[in-house]
Order: sequence, then structure tokens, then C-alpha cells
Amino acid sequence: MKICASILSTGSEVLEGRVTDTNSVFLLERLAELGLPVEHVLSCADEMGSILQSLNFLAAHSLIIIVSGGLGPTADDLTREAVAEFAGLELELNESLAQQLEKLYQAKGRVFDEVNKKQAYVPKGAVVIPNRLGTAPGFSCAVKGADGITRHVIALSGVPFELKSMFDEAVLPFIIKEILPPAGGFGFEKRSLRVFGLPESTVAKRIQESSLPPEVIVSYRAVFPAVDVVLKVPRGPSAAEVIQHSLECVEEAVGRDYIFADDVNRPFEGVLHDLLLEKRLTIAVAESCTGGLVGALLTNMPGSSAYFVGGVVSYSNHIKTKLLGVAETVLQEHGAVSFETAELMAQGVRNSFSSDLGLAVTGIAGPEGGSAEKPVGTFFIGFCDKNESMAYKCFFSSTRERIRKYSAYAALDVVRRKLLRRPIVFPGNH
Amino acid sequence: MKICASILSTGSEVLEGRVTDTNSVFLLERLAELGLPVEHVLSCADEMGSILQSLNFLAAHSLIIIVSGGLGPTADDLTREAVAEFAGLELELNESLAQQLEKLYQAKGRVFDEVNKKQAYVPKGAVVIPNRLGTAPGFSCAVKGADGITRHVIALSGVPFELKSMFDEAVLPFIIKEILPPAGGFGFEKRSLRVFGLPESTVAKRIQESSLPPEVIVSYRAVFPAVDVVLKVPRGPSAAEVIQHSLECVEEAVGRDYIFADDVNRPFEGVLHDLLLEKRLTIAVAESCTGGLVGALLTNMPGSSAYFVGGVVSYSNHIKTKLLGVAETVLQEHGAVSFETAELMAQGVRNSFSSDLGLAVTGIAGPEGGSAEKPVGTFFIGFCDKNESMAYKCFFSSTRERIRKYSAYAALDVVRRKLLRRPIVFPGNH
Repeated sequence: MKICASILSTGSEVLEGRVTDTNSVFLLERLAELGLPVEHVLSCADEMGSILQSLNFLAAHSLIIIVSGGLGPTADDLTREAVAEFAGLELELNESLAQQLEKLYQAKGRVFDEVNKKQAYVPKGAVVIPNRLGTAPGFSCAVKGADGITRHVIALSGVPFELKSMFDEAVLPFIIKEILPPAGGFGFEKRSLRVFGLPESTVAKRIQESSLPPEVIVSYRAVFPAVDVVLKVPRGPSAAEVIQHSLECVEEAVGRDYIFADDVNRPFEGVLHDLLLEKRLTIAVAESCTGGLVGALLTNMPGSSAYFVGGVVSYSNHIKTKLLGVAETVLQEHGAVSFETAELMAQGVRNSFSSDLGLAVTGIAGPEGGSAEKPVGTFFIGFCDKNESMAYKCFFSSTRERIRKYSAYAALDVVRRKLLRRPIVFPGNH
Repeated sequence: MKICASILSTGSEVLEGRVTDTNSVFLLERLAELGLPVEHVLSCADEMGSILQSLNFLAAHSLIIIVSGGLGPTADDLTREAVAEFAGLELELNESLAQQLEKLYQAKGRVFDEVNKKQAYVPKGAVVIPNRLGTAPGFSCAVKGADGITRHVIALSGVPFELKSMFDEAVLPFIIKEILPPAGGFGFEKRSLRVFGLPESTVAKRIQESSLPPEVIVSYRAVFPAVDVVLKVPRGPSAAEVIQHSLECVEEAVGRDYIFADDVNRPFEGVLHDLLLEKRLTIAVAESCTGGLVGALLTNMPGSSAYFVGGVVSYSNHIKTKLLGVAETVLQEHGAVSFETAELMAQGVRNSFSSDLGLAVTGIAGPEGGSAEKPVGTFFIGFCDKNESMAYKCFFSSTRERIRKYSAYAALDVVRRKLLRRPIVFPGNH
């Protein structure tokens, strides 16, 4: 049997459509990173018979079974009993676990009674997996099958943030140390990057047409409005070299200017945070169609007050004139959604807020308000600093929600490109 | 065997952690609405053996098996073959389907070759399920088991928007008409409501302690920062009466003022949209810790320009003074996060934007910046109209992201309560 894992999520709340099984999504991501193939993901009810049948089915195909949920103290928490029965082992009180739990309950001012004590029982010989963030500990249990092959059943709390910490802190090292072959060969060298301004299909096409080494596995995930690209190479003597070469290959193929971050966990506003701090520049924003989204994005970052001075949401024309100094004649002649207005909004907010940089967005988010000349999805971004002042025209056809989001990120991208002295290119750009 | 369903999602992309199985989430929600219990949800690889084993496992416990994915024309699309083998049926060319597909391919300017023609084959006797939005049609197949009981295997496209339309347009009516008992009794009368300002545990406790009729099924979903409550009563002669009574019971128990919407699909900004339009009032916002989130929320709604004039994001103290007229002495004496500043910010933005209502938020979102007197999570909401002007102190201890989001919604809730003449109560309110 090849080394592979399965995931069993227990609990009626998933089957009843009341909660989404985010635990399985998390475990799939982590096991993929580890390079451990997953054979099945199964959800079943909190019932003894159902859990047992599920364990038997999964064990027929997998060496590692990760079970989430059903470890709490109440009557519908049956994972402990089901795994013990599946393994043919008795449940045994773990004294040191009982003492820890008693202390924990005392510290929380809660009673540690016989019901709660249930959580200190594990199948005989099982390894306890601590739960730093909750009460119910997990365990890992080696079970020899009728075929003479040992399976590992790993039971974890079903509370998502508890499961995550238990997996990362205890299960991952355990799998690597105790289950995977010591010679290694498991897992991947990984690099990722985030693209803005190109559709996923274009990114994929450019990468497919590049001369990427054949052993590189490329995967894409559209995290609107970014496209995330992950490159993986199976671990081995030349993996580090191959992955580095592949990364350069992909950057070249996609176009370096479109790559805003070199890690899928890096948000756009984090990239700007570092750039603005490094260059010691302050910024103020004038927003129309985005209604405050650009400011909300920039202030996601702790410490953003070091560079973000503030902004004006000028949803009405009157406010564009009164607070940002956009001349009424400009609004009448060119419209609120125009090169001229965007540029004047950026200048106006920079002047009013005495910031180094001024940024502005004005556009038509729809669903109404478009015209033949300026259809829904048209927006303009204004930018100015002490040396220059300009505006860019962009077009992104989609729903109101996505147009607003896209235009907010496009505004941030203008700042990024400006600060990095990269050319500014947009779909529909003039 | 009780009438229940299982879901099988085929495809390596889910098991490899590359995409999230949103199809199963959708199907679980729909089956729950229908009142059809789900026994298992299983993901397996695009492999003949794996799909067959999975079908056999699921068929041991369920009468209806809904399979997603694997219906396309390529070599790794094996659902058609696997279901035929499971059912012991031949695959047969459906001539009318082949003609429809040929027309569709011609219309798209694509070649309809033997590979694509594969999609016109279905197990002998299967009912074709049209795919209005894509090429690969689905099918439903009745399979008599060794136990003499008939199972229904329903195969659908794995492309999420195709699956959704296929399910809603064809599968749902098919299940109701052909599979569920004709006498009815399936399904529920349903009502929902959305709560803001109380934690989920408090909402649940209040409802549990109410005198709700025992046949009512209550479920909760925390859609931060709202808590959604869904009430269901099995369909029957008195269901409409029971559900209405239950709704009143729950409203009474939770507290009517905390219920901001009577439908889980209604966003907070939609509630304000209707209220502001109905009362013909305009609003302007002054934001500090939320950085633009309140404006971004209000402008989510198409047509928000009818009431939203704009706003100022006054992230620095200087801007609070310059653009909102908050006296420097007030900032020095009481701080930027205070009753006084919040009230003056609301007045300032109302004056500056000539709006009917002024709304302001200022607070400490963290992770730094808290004090013993004003810990992280403290925020103040200012509100004024032509008659009155006041500020409210609130406290919500959490992460930066959640504090910001909570305070933006709390600001909207102040407006909602004001316009409905409800008392304004917040955790930590003075």
C-alpha cells in the first residue's frame, strides 16, 4: 500500500449544511504541502456505527487517517470510543492528562466533573496530542490491520483554530518523524508569487508556453483580484536549483511588473506598507466609486498611521468641488469619471492632507450609470507626488462588487509601480 | 433503509488541496433545505477503481447518490463509465443529445469530434439532465441493489455554476417528483433572522430558554459580525402557524432591537439603504480606526448615491481638526478616541458635507495603542442629525481585523436604531 492519508470529519453540523467543513480544507492544504497524497475525504455523522464504518472504509486504502471532531465531553462526542473499538483497544485514563485538565478547568473557574474527565481517556498505548487552545486533547493510535500493515489514526479537536494549532505543532512533526520514510524524498521545494492585472487564463497560458523544467508542478488559485501561482519541485539533490531557475522562468514569462508579491500569504497592502515605510512617504486618498475601500485596505496593516494620513470619500460632485477643489467647469465638461477629474482629485487630496502622495479613484461601478463612451467598469486612477501628476484610464467588466474591489487594488498597484519605477499598464489603458 | 442521500465529489484537484469543494457545500445546503438527510460526503480521485469503491460504500447507506465531476470529454473523465459499471448497464449513445451537442459546438465555432461525442453517451435507460451553461450533460440512473432496493445515482458536471443550475433546474424537481414519497411530509417551513450586537452563545442561550414549540429545529451560523438564526418546522397542516408563533417567540427571547434583518440574505447595508430612502435622509461619515470601511459598506448598494454624500477618513489628528473642525484642545484634553471627539467628528462631517445625518467612528483597533483606561477594542460612535448630537462608547475585544469590522457595523447599527427610534445598547456602553 502506497503511503497516503485520508481525512474523516465527524459531526452532523456539516452534513446538515449548517457549517462548512473548513477543517478538511485546511488539512488538504497542509498535506499537499507535505507532499503526502490524500486518498479520501469523508464526512459522517456523530454516530458510533457511522464512524466505525467510515474508519473501516478509509483504512482499506490509507495508512494515515486524520479524524476531526467528536472529542469533547458530551454524549454525542464518540470519536474516542469509535477509534478504540476500531483499534481493538481499551480506553484508559491518562492520569497526567487528567491532572492538566483539572488545573485548566480550575483556572477557568469551571467545575471538573466526571463528564469533563472523559476527555482524559485515550485508547491504551495512544500518543496524546496536546490541545494548547482548548480542553479536549487529541491522540494518535497505531493499529495493525488483518493484512499485517500498521495504520495510524490521528484524532483532533473539531474546533477549527484548535485543530490548526494541534496539527501544526504536534501532528506535522509526528508524521514527518514517525510515519514518513526516514530517507526523505517526501515533500516539495516550493515557491509562490502573486500576480495582479492579468486574468488567470493569461497567466496560465504564459507559463505553459515558457520553458519550465518538466518536473515542476504549477498550480493556480484565483484569489480575486490576485492570481496566485505556486511552483513545486519534488525534494532532491537538485531541487533548490531547479525551483530557483523555474521561478525566474515564470517571472520572465508572466512579466515581472505584474508580480506584486513573492509569497501567497503577502497581502497587497503589506507590499505597499513596506514600500511606503522604506521610502518614508505619506499618502492620502480621494475615492468616489470605491466609497472608502482604498483607505480600508491601507489601514488593514497595523502601523499604517506612519504613512496613511487619511482620505475623502467624494461620492457627490458637490464634495469633489468643495473638499477636493475639482472645478465645477471640469466636472461639467469632462464628467466626474474622467482623466481630468481623477487627476484633480489626487492633487486636491494631496494639498488638503499635506501628504507626499495623492491617490484618487473615480469610476462607474454599475449596475446603472454606464454610457457608450464610458461603460460600466470604466474607472480612472489619479496619482501625484511633488514632481508629477497624471491619470490612467482602466476598464474591468464585471459585477458592481468586483469592479469596486478591482479598482481599489488597481489604485494601490499604480502606487506600487510608481514607487518601484515600473511602467503603468492597464487593460484599456490609453 | 431510511430515505437519505450521499454526495460523491470526484477529482484530484480537491484532494490535492488546489481547489475547495464548493459543490458539496452547495449540495449540502440545498439538501438541508429540502429536508433530505445526508449520510456521507466523500471526495475521491479520478480513478475507475476509486470511484467504484466509493459508489459501493455510499450505496450501502444511501438511496440517493449525487456525483459531481468527471463528465467531460477527456481521458480522466470517468464518472460515466464508473456509474455504468456500478449499475451493471451499458453506455449508450443518446442520439438527440449528440445532435444538441453538435449544434452547440458549431455555435461556439468548435469541432465536434469523437472525443467530444463521448459526452452524448449515458448508461442505458438513464434520464438525461440538461446542462444549460456548459457542454457535459448529466444523468440520473436507477440501480436495483442485491437487497432489492433501488438507488438513484445522479451525475452532474463538476463546474460549480453548471452544477448549481443543473441541480436547481432539473435535479431538485426530479427528486421531489420521482424519489420522495408522494404524500409529502418532506421539507420544512423556514424563517430566518439576523442578529447584531450579541455573541452567538448568548443568542443560543436566550432561544434555548424560550418556550419554543418542541418540533422547531433551530440552527445558528455566525457570519461575523452577525449571528444568523434559522427556524425550521417539518411541513404539515399546522406548520405555517407553528413557524409564525416560533418566530415571535424567538424575537421576544433574543430582543427585537437586536434583530436587524428578517432574512439571512439581507445585508446590513441593505437594511440601511431601505431606511434612508424611505425617510429621505442623506448621510456623511467621518472615520478613523475603520479607515473607510463604513463608507465602503454603505456604497456596496447600487443606488447608494441617493443618500450617501461622502466621508472623511481622518486617520491623523491634524485632519480631524482641519477637515472636521475638532478643536485641538478637545483632542489634547480627551484624546482622539473619546466621546467628545466622536461627537465633534459627526458634527463636523455633517456640516462639511451638508448632510441630514452625521456618523463618526474613532477607536483603538490594535494591536498597539491601548491603555488601561482605553484598551484595544475600545471605540466611540458619534451621531448627529438636525435635532440631537451624541456619542456612544463600545468595547469589542478581538483581532485588529475583527475590531475594525465590528466597529463599522456598530456604527451602522446606531443609525438603524436611531431611525427606528430604538434604544441604543452596546456591550460596555455608558
